Amino acid sequence: MIGIGVIGYGYWGPNLVRNFSQTDGAQVIAVCDQSPARRKQVTAHYPAVTAYADVKELLADPKVDAVIIATPVSSHYELAMAALHAGKHVLVEKPMTTTSEQAESLIDEAEKRKLTLMVDHTFVYTTVVQRIRELMQQGSLGQLYYYDSVRVNLGLFQHDVNVLWDLAVHDLSIMDFVLGRPPKTIAATGMASVPGQPESLAYLTCFFPDNLIAHFHVNWLAPVKVRRTMIGGSHKMIEWDDMQLSEKLRIYDKGITTVNSSPDGVYQLKVGYRAGDMWAPHLSNVEALAVEARHFIDCIGSGRKPTTDGSAGLRVVRILEAASKSMAARGAPVDI
Amino acid sequence: MIGIGVIGYGYWGPNLVRNFSQTDGAQVIAVCDQSPARRKQVTAHYPAVTAYADVKELLADPKVDAVIIATPVSSHYELAMAALHAGKHVLVEKPMTTTSEQAESLIDEAEKRKLTLMVDHTFVYTTVVQRIRELMQQGSLGQLYYYDSVRVNLGLFQHDVNVLWDLAVHDLSIMDFVLGRPPKTIAATGMASVPGQPESLAYLTCFFPDNLIAHFHVNWLAPVKVRRTMIGGSHKMIEWDDMQLSEKLRIYDKGITTVNSSPDGVYQLKVGYRAGDMWAPHLSNVEALAVEARHFIDCIGSGRKPTTDGSAGLRVVRILEAASKSMAARGAPVDI
Amino acid sequence: MIGIGVIGYGYWGPNLVRNFSQTDGAQVIAVCDQSPARRKQVTAHYPAVTAYADVKELLADPKVDAVIIATPVSSHYELAMAALHAGKHVLVEKPMTTTSEQAESLIDEAEKRKLTLMVDHTFVYTTVVQRIRELMQQGSLGQLYYYDSVRVNLGLFQHDVNVLWDLAVHDLSIMDFVLGRPPKTIAATGMASVPGQPESLAYLTCFFPDNLIAHFHVNWLAPVKVRRTMIGGSHKMIEWDDMQLSEKLRIYDKGITTVNSSPDGVYQLKVGYRAGDMWAPHLSNVEALAVEARHFIDCIGSGRKPTTDGSAGLRVVRILEAASKSMAARGAPVDI
Amino acid sequence: MIGIGVIGYGYWGPNLVRNFSQTDGAQVIAVCDQSPARRKQVTAHYPAVTAYADVKELLADPKVDAVIIATPVSSHYELAMAALHAGKHVLVEKPMTTTSEQAESLIDEAEKRKLTLMVDHTFVYTTVVQRIRELMQQGSLGQLYYYDSVRVNLGLFQHDVNVLWDLAVHDLSIMDFVLGRPPKTIAATGMASVPGQPESLAYLTCFFPDNLIAHFHVNWLAPVKVRRTMIGGSHKMIEWDDMQLSEKLRIYDKGITTVNSSPDGVYQLKVGYRAGDMWAPHLSNVEALAVEARHFIDCIGSGRKPTTDGSAGLRVVRILEAASKSMAARGAPVDI
Repeated sequence: MIGIGVIGYGYWGPNLVRNFSQTDGAQVIAVCDQSPARRKQVTAHYPAVTAYADVKELLADPKVDAVIIATPVSSHYELAMAALHAGKHVLVEKPMTTTSEQAESLIDEAEKRKLTLMVDHTFVYTTVVQRIRELMQQGSLGQLYYYDSVRVNLGLFQHDVNVLWDLAVHDLSIMDFVLGRPPKTIAATGMASVPGQPESLAYLTCFFPDNLIAHFHVNWLAPVKVRRTMIGGSHKMIEWDDMQLSEKLRIYDKGITTVNSSPDGVYQLKVGYRAGDMWAPHLSNVEALAVEARHFIDCIGSGRKPTTDGSAGLRVVRILEAASKSMAARGAPVDI
Repeated sequence: MIGIGVIGYGYWGPNLVRNFSQTDGAQVIAVCDQSPARRKQVTAHYPAVTAYADVKELLADPKVDAVIIATPVSSHYELAMAALHAGKHVLVEKPMTTTSEQAESLIDEAEKRKLTLMVDHTFVYTTVVQRIRELMQQGSLGQLYYYDSVRVNLGLFQHDVNVLWDLAVHDLSIMDFVLGRPPKTIAATGMASVPGQPESLAYLTCFFPDNLIAHFHVNWLAPVKVRRTMIGGSHKMIEWDDMQLSEKLRIYDKGITTVNSSPDGVYQLKVGYRAGDMWAPHLSNVEALAVEARHFIDCIGSGRKPTTDGSAGLRVVRILEAASKSMAARGAPVDI
Repeated sequence: MIGIGVIGYGYWGPNLVRNFSQTDGAQVIAVCDQSPARRKQVTAHYPAVTAYADVKELLADPKVDAVIIATPVSSHYELAMAALHAGKHVLVEKPMTTTSEQAESLIDEAEKRKLTLMVDHTFVYTTVVQRIRELMQQGSLGQLYYYDSVRVNLGLFQHDVNVLWDLAVHDLSIMDFVLGRPPKTIAATGMASVPGQPESLAYLTCFFPDNLIAHFHVNWLAPVKVRRTMIGGSHKMIEWDDMQLSEKLRIYDKGITTVNSSPDGVYQLKVGYRAGDMWAPHLSNVEALAVEARHFIDCIGSGRKPTTDGSAGLRVVRILEAASKSMAARGAPVDI
Repeated sequence: MIGIGVIGYGYWGPNLVRNFSQTDGAQVIAVCDQSPARRKQVTAHYPAVTAYADVKELLADPKVDAVIIATPVSSHYELAMAALHAGKHVLVEKPMTTTSEQAESLIDEAEKRKLTLMVDHTFVYTTVVQRIRELMQQGSLGQLYYYDSVRVNLGLFQHDVNVLWDLAVHDLSIMDFVLGRPPKTIAATGMASVPGQPESLAYLTCFFPDNLIAHFHVNWLAPVKVRRTMIGGSHKMIEWDDMQLSEKLRIYDKGITTVNSSPDGVYQLKVGYRAGDMWAPHLSNVEALAVEARHFIDCIGSGRKPTTDGSAGLRVVRILEAASKSMAARGAPVDI
């Protein structure tokens, strides 16, 4: 039985406690939150759980084997490092840290101590993303051309991080899992609708070593809610529209055809396209966080690397760092 | 009565001939096309129209007062200049020319000769774009934050121009009309799905002197057809979804609110948002090209500048030039 | 403080307990359910609530002032009557009873004892239905022509009632509130996809004394989920699409126009139509059941008739009775 | 070469002339219309076609082998009979006639004279309807439960026929082809938005000898345009949404499952459902009328019965007759 301690009981914490409470082999031992009202909420719903006001107490609790950090990003590094020092396994919210150096330190520390370090890239554990990954690994799409993602709506403005660190982090973690390889160069542009505040709108391009390009559009201030990813390949193309209530994932048997109309070379290539059937696989309705909780507990038991380990968290932070740098330079490319 | 000569009877030429045939004060005199089959088509449908094989003959026809150029972009400059030299008014397809220098020469020549020079930015003459322009001029949206446009589908690959010059030209001409002011700096990224061929996918950011940002996403190789423009302001936001069969234009009474929660200054600003009604004005179903034909004839008669005059065409070409340059440099910003 | 007892803790019961727990002036005293597992669930979440296995115990509890009945429809009459006899106010799930005679008896009994009797027509308390009712009362739609409702999806097959009593009951209760007057004649057709089982698909027409017609389409076995109501009037038309995530309610400034093209009379009438703007009012996101709980408590306090009182429940049962009769006779009209 | 004469050059006539002009083996010889303006239109576009003012002249033209009747329904019988008497093959618009007796007379006359008699049920020749028919013939859907069709929009009010004869005729002709068997009993309800005028809204149920039910909803006065057909079977379900620009036809691997939970019989059946993948076959973009024109010419040549022969036209008229009768009796069932 793995004892779980959760730090932070704001928006996401209650979901974590609920899911780990229902995970075989795990037991939620303690929750830590500075707010007395939230601590009262914890004990009302979970009488067996201890509610601490001070992180040190939670880390000192010998029944706590693993710590989950669900606090604002600026505190991730310090809390995760303290937990590792206390000999606890760690599951940390995304983005993993505010700098890639911090992420590297955590990875080193966890390795040295042989502790499990995992990042909560929740979307990776959804059935739809798992299915897209399978299609990729089977090579169903042929040669990949582009990965295009839009995540916009009228949403909460953050005051400490820009929209890339708040919204694009979801899509970058999905891309990291689905493509299985990191980009080389980043170019980003953006705008702060209120001067002096973090950027509320951003466009981010990732260049890969081969011909592949990925693009992300995020916005806190859109009149309609759009959550759509398109992936284009030479054999097939994918549309994942997360606002659909059913048939979220659609696979199109469409692609391009090239005819070499002369023996003289590439400039004589005639590029056409091919339209075919569309297919929407049925996806089961399991909660991603339940799958992820199961995976965290399994990894602690077996000592295997989690799917979304510290390195995955680091790769995403590196893109975000490069993107913020490029955005400040109006799109000038930044190598990773 | 203005005599009209049309050069090029391919995809767009027949629409031009049909609309100018029905415009009071205009008479289609001649069409020029190198293909005998197309010339035969012209005379079958329009027995009174002369079909020339050689442009020189059309330009020498004294009954032709104005020339419309509907040929590939590489020939626009030469043909338009020849028409101006022959003393003809000119309506040229978009993009106006392949370089801004060419566009400037045409503007100078037309001004010197007091001839009307107009660019066929057709979308500007649709009821939906006219309505958006009105909303802008009335200041209905408040302070503008962003202009975001997507035009993607599985479409014809061009071999002589990249996707920006083929698709984004539509949206740039719309933006030029709607915003009424040019951007200062351009950053663009893109990808050629077939190496050695022109880019088939591109992302283009325009920075304006104030806080405003505009972005364009174009793609010849998308599984679904999307034609959507969103414009965000402090008071209202617009969504124009051209794939809708009705209610294409939707105006949202949504925006952001800022509360200065401390007297110390801007870093204490609390940014929230406001959600309200949506309104879709009824738009009449007139053909844009008919409105545009009427406008061209009126401008010739009155000597007034067309809404989409040579300068409008030049402004769009300048953005396309800068975008191609930036795209080659992986997003590095290019000033106009 | 009104003490609340809830009978039945299956699908809907937990929602009732949660909402009444948060209603000022109400206190959930007891829950009754035959299943030990469900009783355990109650006390785990609500330690202060007594969980009874026997209805008699709940009805004998002097702290219980009002009883909410959330059991299968076949038991509604008996339980509600027992509660009234015990001097309790009653809120009963829909459909109110299995026969109109039973509904009449409950109304009489409640009136005799001066107890509040209310039926849980939940949709009536949604902001969207309240808004439609307002539009009706203001006469915004002009003369009403039709009310058309579709509620279909791949859903649970009931074994004790047909699809009219399970799904159409929602729409009939909405229509009853929105139109404010009962139909005169009913015609219904339907089909049982498994012979011997209750009808899983039904079409129901309501004729009103004037020209108005209402129609309901319900189906447990549809490939897609549709929940759409259209209301047509001479001045305006409404579409309420409950599957939309936003802008559920759309008001169209469309209607018909009649021109009497000759003085000879009605057969010379030329009927045309008029298309105008569309408008989607912003609707707040309050939970209908919270509003309804508030209303029930208020009515108990003031002695006023609830919006969805026993008579509303009776009117809906009468339509369902007539519809089942007509359906058995393949659509033959049945007067109410 | 089959010489074609077209009677009526209003809304549909020009489409007929254009398609038959492009059909190998056919030649449009003559068009007849009472309006001088329309006759002028004919000769302007088709100089080789003779434009008659009088039907007798067209029927007397020896070069005319087959006559197409595109006039209001009230004149179909008389014109078709005259054409048959003149020894011409006949293609008549839908609905075929105003009574089933008239349709039977035409069938008899055509058979006696060994002439081809075909009804213009255009939708039958679309790729989507052909594909649905194939699925039916392969038994892909399993046992059929229902056929549900909606065709509503803000459309032209007819003055001579009600909405069933104007709109439902399309869907009844499709159903006749797709199901391949006629219903036994009809129940219909409806409403005239302008008293004294034909019904502008109607609901029509068809009962088949087995458990199958079909329903049609048509309306000239709806705020939105809906054209949707759903077909439910035990193995698969179909949705055909004709307002979609692509993927109009969607096949759902969904159905019901029955588990006999006791050996005692049917009342113990537990009905559940099964959800699976969705599949949208790519459909080519051929014009239905071109396919139909080809078929008419082929049938004349081979002497074979057309797919939409007089009997198909008669079957549809019989449903319309029964429906009008039932509608006048507020839904009372009418046997065919």
